[in-house]
Amino acid sequence: MNNVQKYIGEELPRFTQEIFDFLRIPSISAKSSHNTDTRQAADWLQEKLIETGFQAEVIHTPGHPIVLGEWRSAGDDAPTVLVYGHYDVQPPEPLELWESPPFEPEIRNGRLYARGSADDKGQLYLHVKAAEAHLKANGTLPINLIILAEGEEEVGSPNLGPFVEANKDRLACETVVISDSGMFAPGLPSLIFSLRGLAYSEIHVTGPSGDLHSGEFGGPIVNPAMALAQILATLFDDNGRIAIEGFYDDVLECDSETQNAIRNLPFDKDGFSELAGVTLSGGENEYSVPERLWTRPTCEVNGLLSGYTGEGAKTVLPSKAMAKVSFRLVPEQNPKRVYELLKSHVAKFTPEGVEVHLEELIGGMPWSANLTQKLKNAATNALVEAFGAKPVLAGGGGSIPIVGEFERALGAPVLLLGFSLPGANLHAPNEWFPEEHIEKGIRALGHLYEELG
Amino acid sequence: MNNVQKYIGEELPRFTQEIFDFLRIPSISAKSSHNTDTRQAADWLQEKLIETGFQAEVIHTPGHPIVLGEWRSAGDDAPTVLVYGHYDVQPPEPLELWESPPFEPEIRNGRLYARGSADDKGQLYLHVKAAEAHLKANGTLPINLIILAEGEEEVGSPNLGPFVEANKDRLACETVVISDSGMFAPGLPSLIFSLRGLAYSEIHVTGPSGDLHSGEFGGPIVNPAMALAQILATLFDDNGRIAIEGFYDDVLECDSETQNAIRNLPFDKDGFSELAGVTLSGGENEYSVPERLWTRPTCEVNGLLSGYTGEGAKTVLPSKAMAKVSFRLVPEQNPKRVYELLKSHVAKFTPEGVEVHLEELIGGMPWSANLTQKLKNAATNALVEAFGAKPVLAGGGGSIPIVGEFERALGAPVLLLGFSLPGANLHAPNEWFPEEHIEKGIRALGHLYEELG
Repeated sequence: MNNVQKYIGEELPRFTQEIFDFLRIPSISAKSSHNTDTRQAADWLQEKLIETGFQAEVIHTPGHPIVLGEWRSAGDDAPTVLVYGHYDVQPPEPLELWESPPFEPEIRNGRLYARGSADDKGQLYLHVKAAEAHLKANGTLPINLIILAEGEEEVGSPNLGPFVEANKDRLACETVVISDSGMFAPGLPSLIFSLRGLAYSEIHVTGPSGDLHSGEFGGPIVNPAMALAQILATLFDDNGRIAIEGFYDDVLECDSETQNAIRNLPFDKDGFSELAGVTLSGGENEYSVPERLWTRPTCEVNGLLSGYTGEGAKTVLPSKAMAKVSFRLVPEQNPKRVYELLKSHVAKFTPEGVEVHLEELIGGMPWSANLTQKLKNAATNALVEAFGAKPVLAGGGGSIPIVGEFERALGAPVLLLGFSLPGANLHAPNEWFPEEHIEKGIRALGHLYEELG
Repeated sequence: MNNVQKYIGEELPRFTQEIFDFLRIPSISAKSSHNTDTRQAADWLQEKLIETGFQAEVIHTPGHPIVLGEWRSAGDDAPTVLVYGHYDVQPPEPLELWESPPFEPEIRNGRLYARGSADDKGQLYLHVKAAEAHLKANGTLPINLIILAEGEEEVGSPNLGPFVEANKDRLACETVVISDSGMFAPGLPSLIFSLRGLAYSEIHVTGPSGDLHSGEFGGPIVNPAMALAQILATLFDDNGRIAIEGFYDDVLECDSETQNAIRNLPFDKDGFSELAGVTLSGGENEYSVPERLWTRPTCEVNGLLSGYTGEGAKTVLPSKAMAKVSFRLVPEQNPKRVYELLKSHVAKFTPEGVEVHLEELIGGMPWSANLTQKLKNAATNALVEAFGAKPVLAGGGGSIPIVGEFERALGAPVLLLGFSLPGANLHAPNEWFPEEHIEKGIRALGHLYEELG
């Protein structure tokens, strides 16, 4: 065991206590009543980076600040790695569903429970401690390391893109590493090969100029809520495929190597079904469940609202109805084009007697990993060292728009390397991170820095 | 002109002021904060009945009280007529849409604007004043007259049915008269030949045990909001007919006489369309608009709720979705049977991967008038005297469950004779009643009492 790994073993209890300290700060970015806490989390992180040997700044933005730590003493010949993470967290509500308070970290049954333990304060801090191990054990790092942490990831990162764009030179690097994701399963570390994109719209159906009495007016009036239901029902065919003309034109079928890799994964269908609390009968049945999650596009109704929704019977013929409808996209789909296809489709299926208006809310491109063989090997070796297992290839069903932005702005590939586990309750009560992965994560990152150096 | 009509002409300004006084009391039955006002309205009405010469009581119920006025001095040979009305009103919200305050009656452009002017305090009080005209001008009435006014019509009349049932002997009568409806058009008084019934349910679709992240879970999970839309879309066929098997089995086609009468009515399609603020392209196109409103059943979505309905994009895969769905029924349909048909239909069209639960909220039978020729003639003569025009036959699209209850409990036919006009904004801001119909209504009722005597 080298000095770095020895140091990690010796200092682990303190590392864990520091993670606890970080998690105790309720840095809820969505709530202005927590602005002081959010700022405190930024200051705390800056201080820890400085103690570790970094130069570190808290940089003002129109929203919550960015923390930028830099250690650049490995020399011009050594590669530069940028680690990105975020120090803000989701609101913890509903509080009554937490078994221990969200900002009082507690270890139970091998899990560290706290808001931010997995997403992302806990994982971000693994990098800080891996860097410390190198700097304290060896007096140096094999790479130049930039640690960039924002405080607005949970509110859509409004100020990060402009900051990256304006500081391209300062942030220039060979590789971006992000630990804000999970492993495929316990004991199976993962390399994420793709993320889905997103096209999110609202469909507004309007009919009568105001809510009408369903007795006095019902019959010759087209009901906007019924019309909305009819429109939504046209979005799928009977085989779980999206029935919008041209929707699949840009969908790239997965290459057979990736497809085989996915089909050979020990995917725990029962466990996933239990997690969701429902059977897995949706979508395109000719594809396996992980394929439906990672490599196939989806269409979801995210919200419905019309008329009277309170208790009891109100005989209203509503004047309007609204649906939030979103699509998860896969390469080479484009959210703008999907929005246009949806618009044409809806226009085609709008019944006479109502009007439909579409509003495009947000869009994000799908992403495919651009890992060089060298980078793959580095990650694989680091994970084998720490977890004793080769990583599997796994997809990501969600969307992380900043990943594509880093690649475009910095011209460097992004490596997604996270250590949480399925069912980690991200954005939900009782968020947790495996206690064991605190050590294994820091060890893996310590190895990774060596491999990249 | 006889004494009664002369008296009406002389006292009209005071009658109108008294209606203003009645309308000033905000007797909103749905709001317990207005319980004192509702009670005050009952007391006020009792006092006016006593001043007029009635014996009158305010009768306690588990909810708001019933006011019962009786004048029984016409003798055993004279018929007994029961007038039913209600002294409670709908909440006036949204207040900002009222052009004059809802409880400060005001006459503008020949319309009396106030909450309750048409529904029903204004119309109920026309009876009190018609009775006064007889009693003060002639010292007697040609009929025994019972005036029964409840304070819970706008909250579903929970205590009226039991009261009628328990007081059948006291309320025994030859005819029930209700003035809580309108005329077909200005200058065209109407006899209402039918009311539609109601079957109102909630459809609950449940899928995942909690809301899920649409990226992490979207694909193999059936979306409950989409499933609900698909189920609702099966309720109609492409021709505006309800596609539930057996739904039309009990629908009685209108007799050709009524059908001809309806088709010959000068129905103002443009005016109705303007009132609704939308074209009249819904329902069964082979039927005229008034037929679709009165003699054909309907299916409406009254409310929709699922997932995230606030501002912006939340990528939730909702765990449940709800629709309020109601049917207006025509003779001989039965709400219980319609509920059972809906239940079977929904079960048949529920996709795998979600569960559906139906909840029956309220039901009411459709009603056909049972007017004897004598009663028709009496009403016709009274209306011709007051309005200078024969009444037309008109249907009612809404439901008044108590109408059927009176007929069943008392064995007496109900005559619906109301004087409001289309577009009266019942249950909406700026409710109004035609100023001219205060006089004409009292005169018509004065004549009616003579005709029935």
